[in-house]
Amino acid sequence: MSVKNIIFIGLLVFVPISMVAHVLEWGELTVFVTAAIAIIPLAGWMGTATEEIAVVLGPSWGGLLNATFGNATELIIALIALNEGLVNVVKASITGSIIGNLLLVMGLSMLLGGLNRKEQEFQPVVARVNASSMNLAVIALLLPTAVDYTSEGIDMPVEQTLSLTVAGVLIVVYALTLLFSMKTHAYLYDVGLEAAELPETAETTAEHEHKPNLKLWIAVLLGATLLVALESELLVDALEVATAQLGLTNLFTGVILLPIIGNAAEHATAVTVAIKDKMDLSVSVAVGSSLQIALFVAPVLVIAGYFMGQPMNLSFNPFELVAVAVAVLIANSISSDGRSNWLEGTLLLAAYAVLSLAFYFHPVVSGIG
Amino acid sequence: MSVKNIIFIGLLVFVPISMVAHVLEWGELTVFVTAAIAIIPLAGWMGTATEEIAVVLGPSWGGLLNATFGNATELIIALIALNEGLVNVVKASITGSIIGNLLLVMGLSMLLGGLNRKEQEFQPVVARVNASSMNLAVIALLLPTAVDYTSEGIDMPVEQTLSLTVAGVLIVVYALTLLFSMKTHAYLYDVGLEAAELPETAETTAEHEHKPNLKLWIAVLLGATLLVALESELLVDALEVATAQLGLTNLFTGVILLPIIGNAAEHATAVTVAIKDKMDLSVSVAVGSSLQIALFVAPVLVIAGYFMGQPMNLSFNPFELVAVAVAVLIANSISSDGRSNWLEGTLLLAAYAVLSLAFYFHPVVSGIG
Amino acid sequence: MSVKNIIFIGLLVFVPISMVAHVLEWGELTVFVTAAIAIIPLAGWMGTATEEIAVVLGPSWGGLLNATFGNATELIIALIALNEGLVNVVKASITGSIIGNLLLVMGLSMLLGGLNRKEQEFQPVVARVNASSMNLAVIALLLPTAVDYTSEGIDMPVEQTLSLTVAGVLIVVYALTLLFSMKTHAYLYDVGLEAAELPETAETTAEHEHKPNLKLWIAVLLGATLLVALESELLVDALEVATAQLGLTNLFTGVILLPIIGNAAEHATAVTVAIKDKMDLSVSVAVGSSLQIALFVAPVLVIAGYFMGQPMNLSFNPFELVAVAVAVLIANSISSDGRSNWLEGTLLLAAYAVLSLAFYFHPVVSGIG
Repeated sequence: MSVKNIIFIGLLVFVPISMVAHVLEWGELTVFVTAAIAIIPLAGWMGTATEEIAVVLGPSWGGLLNATFGNATELIIALIALNEGLVNVVKASITGSIIGNLLLVMGLSMLLGGLNRKEQEFQPVVARVNASSMNLAVIALLLPTAVDYTSEGIDMPVEQTLSLTVAGVLIVVYALTLLFSMKTHAYLYDVGLEAAELPETAETTAEHEHKPNLKLWIAVLLGATLLVALESELLVDALEVATAQLGLTNLFTGVILLPIIGNAAEHATAVTVAIKDKMDLSVSVAVGSSLQIALFVAPVLVIAGYFMGQPMNLSFNPFELVAVAVAVLIANSISSDGRSNWLEGTLLLAAYAVLSLAFYFHPVVSGIG
Repeated sequence: MSVKNIIFIGLLVFVPISMVAHVLEWGELTVFVTAAIAIIPLAGWMGTATEEIAVVLGPSWGGLLNATFGNATELIIALIALNEGLVNVVKASITGSIIGNLLLVMGLSMLLGGLNRKEQEFQPVVARVNASSMNLAVIALLLPTAVDYTSEGIDMPVEQTLSLTVAGVLIVVYALTLLFSMKTHAYLYDVGLEAAELPETAETTAEHEHKPNLKLWIAVLLGATLLVALESELLVDALEVATAQLGLTNLFTGVILLPIIGNAAEHATAVTVAIKDKMDLSVSVAVGSSLQIALFVAPVLVIAGYFMGQPMNLSFNPFELVAVAVAVLIANSISSDGRSNWLEGTLLLAAYAVLSLAFYFHPVVSGIG
Repeated sequence: MSVKNIIFIGLLVFVPISMVAHVLEWGELTVFVTAAIAIIPLAGWMGTATEEIAVVLGPSWGGLLNATFGNATELIIALIALNEGLVNVVKASITGSIIGNLLLVMGLSMLLGGLNRKEQEFQPVVARVNASSMNLAVIALLLPTAVDYTSEGIDMPVEQTLSLTVAGVLIVVYALTLLFSMKTHAYLYDVGLEAAELPETAETTAEHEHKPNLKLWIAVLLGATLLVALESELLVDALEVATAQLGLTNLFTGVILLPIIGNAAEHATAVTVAIKDKMDLSVSVAVGSSLQIALFVAPVLVIAGYFMGQPMNLSFNPFELVAVAVAVLIANSISSDGRSNWLEGTLLLAAYAVLSLAFYFHPVVSGIG
């Protein structure tokens, strides 16, 4: 059993602790922190279960599955927060997840994976297709904001209609992306991964022969998913009071704090496989996850908000627009050649650090307050 | 005779219809729509004539010729509109043409060309030189806008001087680009196209042996050009009343509607050759056309406006700046590797759809109203 | 002795002239112009001395040494100006140096180096690592500006803290970049340059056998550095009155004028080696110099300003943000493939020309006045 799994079992103790803290009313801050810590191993177990199931399904479907269930945590937290009317926090968590996946998760993977190696390689073709889809998704997500800030104000209903239409376009693009990667051009994704693993020998083969207990892992996945939902309730209920006590703005909470909690699964998976030099899977998890946030989670939230009576448009804080553009730009520039090294990982992390500082110091503005 | 040509002959009936509609005063909207439809086959015939003449001239000069006469339609419409004082519509049609060529024309080409193929290839070297020229052109075109919006206002005469000077730089760069592609580095453009066609066999050779009747096609070209001028008059005269009846803003009309009408030739040519897997020519038409709009048509209009007493500066609506930057960025990211597939075409089209939606919903702001 | 060196000896006459002009009070404008001209050969001699010392040290350390002492001129001028409270001029000279190195120096090198050649080649790997570091540096430098302009105003102390923290991150990244290029991945930088020089024959070998007098050149370097300091005093003292007489804004002086004076060494070195077809060294000087300005000179100035009681934050004029982003974007797009030709050089120069025009016409705004 790996060190990671032992830590993840140990941290599970925070699941009952957070519930006790809630029932005995130990204070919002305690509930928030313990629920946040509890979500990390749960998302981690979802990740481990997903990884095991992915071995059965193969690398391409596995990568997708990884990204989906990493984002399940995010989606659950976001839906609960949206239901309680925390629209701005939810919007901020969308940009924060994209930034976190592209800079923090990919940066950590490249840094730790590159520490004892000259260079790590991954599929540049897939990186390029992903980059183009990502560019489109980011453009689409951020256009309503641009419309808002380049006009003398746009009516709320018009902005809502624009956001809903854009959400529709994004979901269609998402479906087409799946059609491309699973069907018409699946060979790009499969061949690459197979070829990358060809040079490996005995150990790899042994690992491949290891047949995970599919039923067991599906049970783990479902159980963890259920507990994440429960813990998310505690987290969201305590969020406003707790972050105010910590002196954090809603913007910082949404952009930095929530995605770190929600993306624990991606962190664990992407970094672990990067250290094992499976950079294809690692980059596929990090970029694939951002892509799914932008093309699937965000539009689903817009549409869900509409039906939940919590209308959520896509008009972000303009600094979020700058931050996402910056994250996509630097992630593209680093991943486009299909090679990485520790310095590139460090640059991504430095970009994340600088953006986090900026969000930390960013004065609360009306509309996001 | 191809299906395209039959359609283009059929649509010619709208030339007399639009004139009758004008004389008998069937209403501005009718004149506008019929003149717009009439321009499409005329621009199409200009395209067909150009394609035939291009066969005689060879691929490099042919590509240039294609782009020039596609843009002749645009230039004619723009000069007539400028003369009538529709400065903002003309400015919007410049950005709209760039966006339309890079996203709509190139997107349709890549989508339809890629439907039955795994991948299509074109010259990455040429794509890169074009991308760099395009970046420069866009930067130059949009700097006056940036100056305007980052200062506390700039005097009109100063802005006019800045725009005229920038126009001068752009025309010099345009001349140097021609010198590069026709003279000092012509081999880049020719060799690539020849090489791309080498694997083809009998049919292609037959097509190459087909000698077009040069005089006939020059006559067609001139006739179509004349009729486009005439129809453009009708179109521009009816424009303001007609678009107001349709509930469209001047911004949407200039950015989306006019370029679709004016770029019909590029559409027809670029998409047709893409389906025949001549992606070099297709991309060269789409990107070359945007390049010529930015480096030649736009500065010519600035200078012409100055002499016509309709001073046209290069200060655009800031959302146009965002849209052009976005179009160039995504087109660069997709075309830089010299390969395309149906998903990349779809992404370009989706970007165009999202931008169109944004322009449709963009509230009319002072200065462009 | 080369033509360049003869010119640089001749121009040294302006060192005494500028001092006489200062003592005899020939007017601020005369002192400014003569001191500016005097700095050029001095920086030139620093460059020549550096180049000679670089031959002893080898290409990689040599490239770094070149960039360091080119920037020594800049750093000296900036520290003296900062000490006299010209904070806005100093800030503008940071962005101006980045723009000048990427567009003017690299543009001139590619143009003059490419005039009699089809194409010049340099290391794309190094170009890519540099581009990614540059992207990060620019993002970090410009984030405080973005925070400022996307909020309803940020308190001065908060902005100062943010700028100091960002400066700290940048200096750490700078140290890591050196670790990468000198230690863990030095082979990337060395092998490339050796390989590029392998095809050359007798002359090159002779040049390599030429052993420079290390002591002599170190003496020249120190002497020139001292005189630069002295002349910088004259230049800065006369600056405000002189540029006002010339009708120039502080913004234009800082962004365009000072960097041209301060970057004379890079110009001389980068262009000379480009003409000798050593594009690796040329690009390494131009990009390395911008990188060092962004990762080292700028943070040092922020920290120095803090201790000198001249607090200098990183909140720039937003048009500087646009200009730097534009410069990095076009330089990346041109240098990423490791090839250059005269047109690409021209495009960089045209971008510089257009930006200079824009800065010239940019109205003085409060806060930079």
